[in-house]
Amino acid sequence: MAIHQEVVEVRTTGPGFVDVTRKVQAVVDRANVKNALCVVFVQHTSASLLVQENADPAVLRDLGKWLSDLAPEARPWEHDAEGPDDMPSHARSAVTRTSETIPVVDGRLALGTWQAIYLWEHRRQGHGRRLVVSVAS
Amino acid sequence: MAIHQEVVEVRTTGPGFVDVTRKVQAVVDRANVKNALCVVFVQHTSASLLVQENADPAVLRDLGKWLSDLAPEARPWEHDAEGPDDMPSHARSAVTRTSETIPVVDGRLALGTWQAIYLWEHRRQGHGRRLVVSVAS
Amino acid sequence: MAIHQEVVEVRTTGPGFVDVTRKVQAVVDRANVKNALCVVFVQHTSASLLVQENADPAVLRDLGKWLSDLAPEARPWEHDAEGPDDMPSHARSAVTRTSETIPVVDGRLALGTWQAIYLWEHRRQGHGRRLVVSVAS
Repeated sequence: MAIHQEVVEVRTTGPGFVDVTRKVQAVVDRANVKNALCVVFVQHTSASLLVQENADPAVLRDLGKWLSDLAPEARPWEHDAEGPDDMPSHARSAVTRTSETIPVVDGRLALGTWQAIYLWEHRRQGHGRRLVVSVAS
Repeated sequence: MAIHQEVVEVRTTGPGFVDVTRKVQAVVDRANVKNALCVVFVQHTSASLLVQENADPAVLRDLGKWLSDLAPEARPWEHDAEGPDDMPSHARSAVTRTSETIPVVDGRLALGTWQAIYLWEHRRQGHGRRLVVSVAS
Repeated sequence: MAIHQEVVEVRTTGPGFVDVTRKVQAVVDRANVKNALCVVFVQHTSASLLVQENADPAVLRDLGKWLSDLAPEARPWEHDAEGPDDMPSHARSAVTRTSETIPVVDGRLALGTWQAIYLWEHRRQGHGRRLVVSVAS
């Protein structure tokens, strides 16, 4: 197996989705592969990954509100030393993804027509987030 | 690495689980491998994957009802242009799986005794769903 | 591709998290790889995996209580033949992870500073749980 690995740094600006599909495809391009596996791994526990719809931005707004209601700041969390938004961010990360594996076919991420890869920031403040992208062929 | 990839098409008939274990094992068989990794990826955002119990069908019914209660149609979703069942389907997909990686040992998916691989249709209508199955050895 | 696979057995003592990071790193060490992918797969449907914060144990307590509230024993589950804690355990597993893929860089799991790999036992009783750890390089 040949393995090509890069760290991709993503700057977030508060809660919400950052489409990282192009950055991940660029790593695949630099790996210069035909058929392969691409693994995206987020090195954080208060931000997560999601492959979701790339068409209507309302889908992402709905997802954000829904998950915030499932894991609200208002809950009496024991862990609150890092602010009221920290523990709900861990909970929201726990039910979404830390790693995602996407097949590469003919040099392209084999996403469905309506799929994009998102980094989902759960904290109130923007953060520098690190993804490790591995392409194995 | 040798990589063997196939698209597996699955016809669903409305909400619920379709056991795709045999179809995935058939791809592994055609890859003719001993020890490997098998990655299943679903190219949709309103259907998802789950490895779950294969014994009592009541487990799957309970999961379906529970997740429907967590992400109900009755919620005032902003995204409703594709019908009242579309946005809850995205939400239910968001907290289950888009990709799953199963080890292959001696040519067999190394699932536990009670595990099967399911495609989980979240839409009311049946759909043709596409899985990309990759076997890397 | 070279693939190194081991079954790691973990004894749990009831609901909660068991940090398996060292055991997984030990498999990576025995695989004697530089850059690779490490796939952890749990062969059960009432216990699951999670990469989460390794610093404040209150984070894990909060996650446990939160997920128990989302999928409570008190719900009228149809599947109850294996005890009142079995079906909520399937539900809690369904929204966390069955497999997780962690990159290996220079022989080390490329986890973030605050990340550990946990096996999450959801049943009331302790169980012997099996992880299949694969290192592909």
